[in-house]
Formats: sequence, structure tokens, C-alpha cells
Amino acid sequence: MSDRPGFPTSIGTSNTTSITLLGHDLAGELMGKVGFAELAYWLMTLRRPTPGELRVFETVLVTLADHGFTPTAIAARLTYVSAPEALQGAVAAGLLGGGSRFLGVTEDAGRFLAAALREAQRQPQSDAEFDEMARVAVARCRDEKRLVPGLGHPVHKDGDPRTPVLIRIATEAGQHGPHLRLFEAIGRVHPEILGRTLPLNGAGVCGAALADAGLPPELLRGVALLARTAGLLGHLAEEMRRPVARAIYDAVDRNVDYIAPEG
Amino acid sequence: MSDRPGFPTSIGTSNTTSITLLGHDLAGELMGKVGFAELAYWLMTLRRPTPGELRVFETVLVTLADHGFTPTAIAARLTYVSAPEALQGAVAAGLLGGGSRFLGVTEDAGRFLAAALREAQRQPQSDAEFDEMARVAVARCRDEKRLVPGLGHPVHKDGDPRTPVLIRIATEAGQHGPHLRLFEAIGRVHPEILGRTLPLNGAGVCGAALADAGLPPELLRGVALLARTAGLLGHLAEEMRRPVARAIYDAVDRNVDYIAPEG
Amino acid sequence: MSDRPGFPTSIGTSNTTSITLLGHDLAGELMGKVGFAELAYWLMTLRRPTPGELRVFETVLVTLADHGFTPTAIAARLTYVSAPEALQGAVAAGLLGGGSRFLGVTEDAGRFLAAALREAQRQPQSDAEFDEMARVAVARCRDEKRLVPGLGHPVHKDGDPRTPVLIRIATEAGQHGPHLRLFEAIGRVHPEILGRTLPLNGAGVCGAALADAGLPPELLRGVALLARTAGLLGHLAEEMRRPVARAIYDAVDRNVDYIAPEG
Amino acid sequence: MSDRPGFPTSIGTSNTTSITLLGHDLAGELMGKVGFAELAYWLMTLRRPTPGELRVFETVLVTLADHGFTPTAIAARLTYVSAPEALQGAVAAGLLGGGSRFLGVTEDAGRFLAAALREAQRQPQSDAEFDEMARVAVARCRDEKRLVPGLGHPVHKDGDPRTPVLIRIATEAGQHGPHLRLFEAIGRVHPEILGRTLPLNGAGVCGAALADAGLPPELLRGVALLARTAGLLGHLAEEMRRPVARAIYDAVDRNVDYIAPEG
Repeated sequence: MSDRPGFPTSIGTSNTTSITLLGHDLAGELMGKVGFAELAYWLMTLRRPTPGELRVFETVLVTLADHGFTPTAIAARLTYVSAPEALQGAVAAGLLGGGSRFLGVTEDAGRFLAAALREAQRQPQSDAEFDEMARVAVARCRDEKRLVPGLGHPVHKDGDPRTPVLIRIATEAGQHGPHLRLFEAIGRVHPEILGRTLPLNGAGVCGAALADAGLPPELLRGVALLARTAGLLGHLAEEMRRPVARAIYDAVDRNVDYIAPEG
Repeated sequence: MSDRPGFPTSIGTSNTTSITLLGHDLAGELMGKVGFAELAYWLMTLRRPTPGELRVFETVLVTLADHGFTPTAIAARLTYVSAPEALQGAVAAGLLGGGSRFLGVTEDAGRFLAAALREAQRQPQSDAEFDEMARVAVARCRDEKRLVPGLGHPVHKDGDPRTPVLIRIATEAGQHGPHLRLFEAIGRVHPEILGRTLPLNGAGVCGAALADAGLPPELLRGVALLARTAGLLGHLAEEMRRPVARAIYDAVDRNVDYIAPEG
Repeated sequence: MSDRPGFPTSIGTSNTTSITLLGHDLAGELMGKVGFAELAYWLMTLRRPTPGELRVFETVLVTLADHGFTPTAIAARLTYVSAPEALQGAVAAGLLGGGSRFLGVTEDAGRFLAAALREAQRQPQSDAEFDEMARVAVARCRDEKRLVPGLGHPVHKDGDPRTPVLIRIATEAGQHGPHLRLFEAIGRVHPEILGRTLPLNGAGVCGAALADAGLPPELLRGVALLARTAGLLGHLAEEMRRPVARAIYDAVDRNVDYIAPEG
Repeated sequence: MSDRPGFPTSIGTSNTTSITLLGHDLAGELMGKVGFAELAYWLMTLRRPTPGELRVFETVLVTLADHGFTPTAIAARLTYVSAPEALQGAVAAGLLGGGSRFLGVTEDAGRFLAAALREAQRQPQSDAEFDEMARVAVARCRDEKRLVPGLGHPVHKDGDPRTPVLIRIATEAGQHGPHLRLFEAIGRVHPEILGRTLPLNGAGVCGAALADAGLPPELLRGVALLARTAGLLGHLAEEMRRPVARAIYDAVDRNVDYIAPEG
């Protein structure tokens, strides 16, 4: 009897003459025949997406790729200027900001919606039933003094422009499922429970749409990270062409107020 | 006169009602209308790719996404098992291996080919002229005791299956330009100079193809990092479904030979 | 009125002729006059430690510096072999495993003990009072099906050798305070509540000792990260002298069982 | 014959009842008996430092721990504000800036001095001989249009206050060896070769002092990373107490000038 450990995988392997990815010959069956976003979906789920799922997935990746000079983009640029020989470090530094506050909302929203649906005795069918489920979920957040994931935005206070567009695309693609319906219901009922009207934000609608498009909730932050990698590369390419990180550093440095600690 | 610093960018910005990316309205002009790989190319170059450029770019991303249980994939899985609550850390740890030895070959090959073409008095036209340029470049590597970037592979000793496929796709897409031609010439002439025949490897042909498809050489490692992010997410998703990192750790730990140092 | 932002700090600043750190002249007042661990404590708390606090702090750093071929050490070595030109990336990859499962225990234990003490109506004085507080805290963990932070160890099942030594040193240093007393009480009372006897582990006792020595609970993971940086540098230095990461990679690669996914 | 791989190490190991570090029993022989900086030196070199070596090592760690709101400190704070639940990510992001531009100087200087000494036919003895070696080394940098590592500083133009203090401490500790002597010689002779007078900077003198104190040149960046970990923890602790990262982000965001790209 062998005590050979054995590490099972279904991702990739190779031998002298071929490379296998997801059970397919990379050179003969995948290169030129599958798109990059399609492959990313497949890698994460071990299932090739349907055209409708792919359309939503690709739209979400585009939606989340960048949002300007975010803290993560600034961190990536500052890291690049300090260690320009190691681009991977600058990308990694940018991704490390992909936690609860910024990129985490997509996953939080997906998990929140999935949990509400999973706990229900029976799945809601009508809008009225989704509204009722939404009322319970929002009220529980209020009672536990938690924010409702996907609700509210510091800038787009009167409506996030991404939200209706993604809902429309998901609908056209036949991917308007229970997570998006529950998310929309939250948009309808939360004012009566919270006493104020907040927008359904873009990160949240992305989480809902990804869940309807077949991505497991625990991978949604990963989708956001993939999207953001493209955005960070955009910032780093721009930093190479027209640097600003040093000017940012100087602007900070010039405005430091030193307060000597006691002792 | 203001001493307002001013940080110019052409990537993204937003106001209360709209989000702008690359000078276009994200919700109205990009979502659902541009693919993710297309957007990534655009972000890195500030130029929307032609269909031919996009086809090559997307094929390269698929080609480089994964190569099995590489050190970077193992590092990502080990990091996940140690800190499962911070997926961004596991992805970042995996990308940090994207340096000179593994992911760096794509950029090294692209830079090497671009430098040879840039230094030439006149651009080669015929295969014979490319062969002559390749002879000079390979001989210089030999004299400087440097490896020729993109030549040789530890496993695919008799030919990397990715290389001819990518060359064919680039040709079909009208992107078979000077970098690929010089790379192929290196494949033809190196045996006479080095005294042995080595394969043109997949990472190298990706670098050549990206350079012909309009990506600046200094961004090629970034393309490899984007591709690898998808592969790492595949490994991490698999680690969630069917964990092996702890077994890897145990297999290492069981086989440690402790050698007490002197003193 | 100025809209100059103003970023207050009490860490460091400099001008043409001097560098100030923690309100002191670096060259004249700190170099050669303060130890590194002492400075690290000071940086984290803005307060120079007493000799007793420093003795506990330094002992904890030594205790947590390394624990062999952990997943984090392996990840650092694998990253180094992939990108040897960027040592910072290998160290960062190793630290990224410093999350909930491995390095997190120190902070979890400190927070757990601090919360129990903070919630109490009056501070316990006698061992009997600490035992009573411990009973409540352990029972609550049991009821909430949570592990008691700092209790149990996969290897040192009959007692972690670090625990009594650190308690002795803290006592000698006059730093045997309420957190350690509560931790010891948990060691005494948990068998009657959980129905089995578990060791007080080294990571947990470090958390208790640091809390008694004046470190805020939210910084305890940071102390573990500082300690582990030294250990990772030890592994990376060894990897330079006598490499094993490639052999680890080969051992994994050789034992991969490929399972083609469906579809 | 076994094909058991076997991974040799001299760092750490453990069994049910004991933990061994560097060949010593952690609980019985190291805890409370060795300092943290001492252990770090030992881990990196497998040799316990002499008191003189330790004094220099510890002084260098203090010297390099922080230098105010550097790009790496800002990157760490911005990462923390984005993902406050993963302190390890913020520390890692800060360390990733420890590349060629900022923390790299220490290692570059150490390598540069070590290479000059290694290439010499005979080791210089007198100041005049060190001056002659320095002239050759500086002239070569000038001819190759490279900067002399350790020479020059953007702020401390008339002299870095750390340099004379570290030289004095090394001398007192009996660690004023060939690397520091060559570094001082560079300080004396460079004006005649470069035509202008530059200060010997603090990062450079740290590299020279560490090399004299027995640290291998390839580990000097590692020493700087360890020092900086303490500084980053100081910044992150301050960010918890009195946040400024969001204000930095706002200051950047407010001053972005958007330039729509063509196309």
C-alpha cells in the first residue's frame, strides 16, 4: 500500500507533448476557441457558461474594472514608484485593498441575498412575495444595526447609473433570477422600513447578477478581484506613461502636521 | 496662482449621476457593449483594439491563464488555507510569484525582440533578413552567456504545443508582424549558433504576439498577471470545493529533515 | 481660510538636517540608545515600554518568530523561487498567510480575554473570581459552538511548552495581569464545561501576555506579523543557501491526480 | 531505496513535547534568554551574533524603521482603510514598495562595496589604499552612467545625520571594517571624480555597516524589510487611532484632472 499523498485537481496538467486545461487540450480545443472571460468563469465553476451567463459575467467584469483614483489604485501606483522593477508587487498591493470596504460589497450582497433565499421555506414567485422576503431581510439588518449590503452610495445618492443597465442586460440574457428580483424588492421596500430612500448600488447589483448567473457566493469577491486587476493595470500603464504617484506622495508629505507624542 | 497639485488621468472618473471610463459613459456606452478582454487592452493602451488585435490578446490571455500546480498556484492555496477570510491575500500571494522565473518570460521575450528590431538600421523584410537579425541576437546572448528569452522548455522539449497554434491564429488575424517573424527566425537559426535545438516556448511566443498586437513591451508582464489571476481563482475555487493545501503542507512537514546548526 | 488638508502624525518627519522619530531626534537620541523591539513597541503604542513590558514583548516576539515549515513559510519560499529578484514579494506572500487560522490566534485570544474583562461589572480579584469569569466565557463559546481562542493544539496535545515559560517570565517581569490570570483560569475550568482537557496554546498565551504588557488587542496580530517577518527571513536566507522550494514543487507536481471535469 | 524527497532545514521543528529553533529548545533555551533582534540575526545567518555585531544590527534596524509618510507608509494606510479586517494585507502592501527605489539602497550599497572588495587583488589596509579603490569604483559608475549606491539624498543634501552616528557606533562596537572604510573613502574621493559633493546617505551606511557586521549582501534588503515592518505597524496603529488615509484619498480624488483619451 502506497502512502503517496495524491493531490487531485481538475484545473490543469501537462506532459511532454500536450497541455490540458479543464479536461481539454489547451492548444487544440481552447486557444482561439474560448474567450478569456469565458475561461475565467469555467475555471471558477468547472462548467462552461451558457451564452446568457457569459454575457452577464462579462458585463460585470467591465462594470467593476475601475472606479477612478480609489485607495487601491493609489496604493498600486505608490508601490510601483517605489519598486518599478516588480510590477507584480504593485498589482498585488492594489488587490490587497480588495477587502470589506471596497470590493467586498459585491460578495456581501451576493451572500446576503443567497442566504435569505436559502432560509426561506418556499421560494418566492410573485413580486409581492419577493417584497415580503425583502421586508424581513431589511428589518433584520435594521434590528441588528447592520447595513444592508448593496444599498447606498457615497456619490451616486440619487441612483447608481450601473444598476438599471445591468438589470436590463441580465433580463435580456435570460438571467433575471431570484437574486436580482430580491435585490430589486429591497430597492422597493427599504424606505418604509429604514425611513429613508437609498440607491441600489453598482457593486451590489453585480453581486446579485453574478449569483443569478451561476457563480457561487463565496467566489464573488474573486470576480471583483479579476475585474480590478484590469483596472489596476490601466492605472499602472498610465503611471508609466504619465507619472503622478510621486506628486501624490509630495502632496501628502507637504501637508503633514507633526505632533510630537509625549514621553 | 494656485498650487493645487492636479493629478491627470484618462482612466476613470465619476460624478453624482455618471461614471466615465476611458472617456466613455460606463453605463451607456461600455456595459454590455465591450468585452472584458477588450476593456483590459483599452485600459492598458488607451486605444480600443482592432478585432485582429483583440483576437490575439484574448488568445494569449487564455494561453497564459494556468499551467497546473505551479509554485504560484501552490503559494496561493497555502495562503488561502491560512487566511480563508481574505481571498485577496491568496490571489496577491499567487501573483507575487509572477517574476523573472515564471511569468517574466513573456515580457523578457517581447523586450528582447523589440530591442533587436529597434536597434536595427533598417527593418528586415524577407525571411533571410529576419534570419540574419536573429543570428546576431542569438550570438550576442551566447557571447554574454545569457539565455535567449523564449527558447527552451523544461517539459516540452520537442516542441511547445502552444507555439504553432498562436502563430497560426495571429496570422489569421492579420497580426503576424515583425516580432513574431523574428521569433520564428530565432527558432530556425539558433541550432547553428548554440549547437543544439531548443523549442520556441509558449510564454515567449505570447510575448512576440502581444508585441505585434500593439502592447508596449513594458506591459507584457501585466498581461501575464491578468491571465494568471483567472488561473489562480480557478485554483482557489477548487481549494474551496476539494481542499489539498493542507495535504501539501502535511506532505512537506512529514518529510522535513532537521539539521541542527552549529553554535 | 485654507483648505489645506493637514495629515497629522506622531511617527516620523524630517528636514534638511534632522530626522525625528516619535518626537525624538533619530540620530542623537535613538540610534544606539533604544533597541529594535523597544522601538517597535513605542511605534505601536506611542509610549516607551517599561523594562517589564519590554521583557514580555521581546519574549513574545521570540516565541512567535517561527514554527517550522508552516504554510506561510512554504508560500514564501515558493514565491522566492519564482521571483528571486523581489525579496519583498516573498516576505509579503509569507505574511499574507497571517490570517485567522495561523497567526490570528494571538489576537483572537487577546480580544476574547479583553472583551470578557471589559464586560464584567467588577474586575475579578481572586483566583475563584477569575475561575467564575472563565466559566461564563467558556460556556458561552460552547453555547455558540465557537472554539475558545488559545485552547487546544494539533501537536502539543498534552501541553504547549511555551505556555508555562511565558507565564513565568511575565510574572518575573511584574506583568502577570488580569488577561493572563483569566487565561490560566480558562485552563483550570474548561474541562468541567467542555468535558475534555485541552492545552493552553503558545499563540494564546502570547496574546494574553501582550495584553497585560500594554498592547491594545487590535494590534496583536501586528505583533505576530513582526515576529513572523524574522522567521520568514530565516526561511528565505536558508532557501538562498540550500534551496528546497523547487523540490517541494516537484514533489507536489509528481503527485497530482488529474480528474477531468465533465463538459 | 526510498524516493522520499527530504527537505532539509536548520530553522525550526517540533514534536509533541518540544519546539526546536536553530538547534535549541525554544522554551528552555531561547525564550527570555535571547532578544528579538538577536534571534533575527541568528535566523538569517545561522550564527548567533557577537555583542558588537548585535549592537550594529540593532542600531541599523532602529535607523531604517521609519522615515515618515513614505509611499510605502501611505500605501499601507490606504490598504488598511480598504480592508481593515486583514491587517496582514496592509503590512504586505507596505512591504511591496521595498524595492529598488526606497529600501533597495541598503542592499545595493552593501553589494557594491562587497563586489569592489572581492574583486581586488589584495585587500586595502591604509586609508590611501581605500581611497584608491574608491576612486576606481566611483569612476566606473561614472563611466557606466550609474549612480554610486549610498551617495546623495534628496533632503539631507549637506549631510545625512544618521551617517556619522552609525559609523561611530560601529567603531565603538569593534565593527568598523572594510565595507565602512571603503564607504567613507567614497565620501572623500567622489568630489574629485564626479565634480560635485554628495552626502553619504543613511541607507547606504546601513548597508556598509551590516556587511561589516557579518550579514551577507543578498540579505540586506531583508534587514531593511524587517525594520520597515515595525515602522509600518506604527503607521497602521496610528491609522487606527487617528485615521488620515481617507483624507489622503479625498485630497487626491479632489485634485484629479480628467483628460478623455481619443477614440
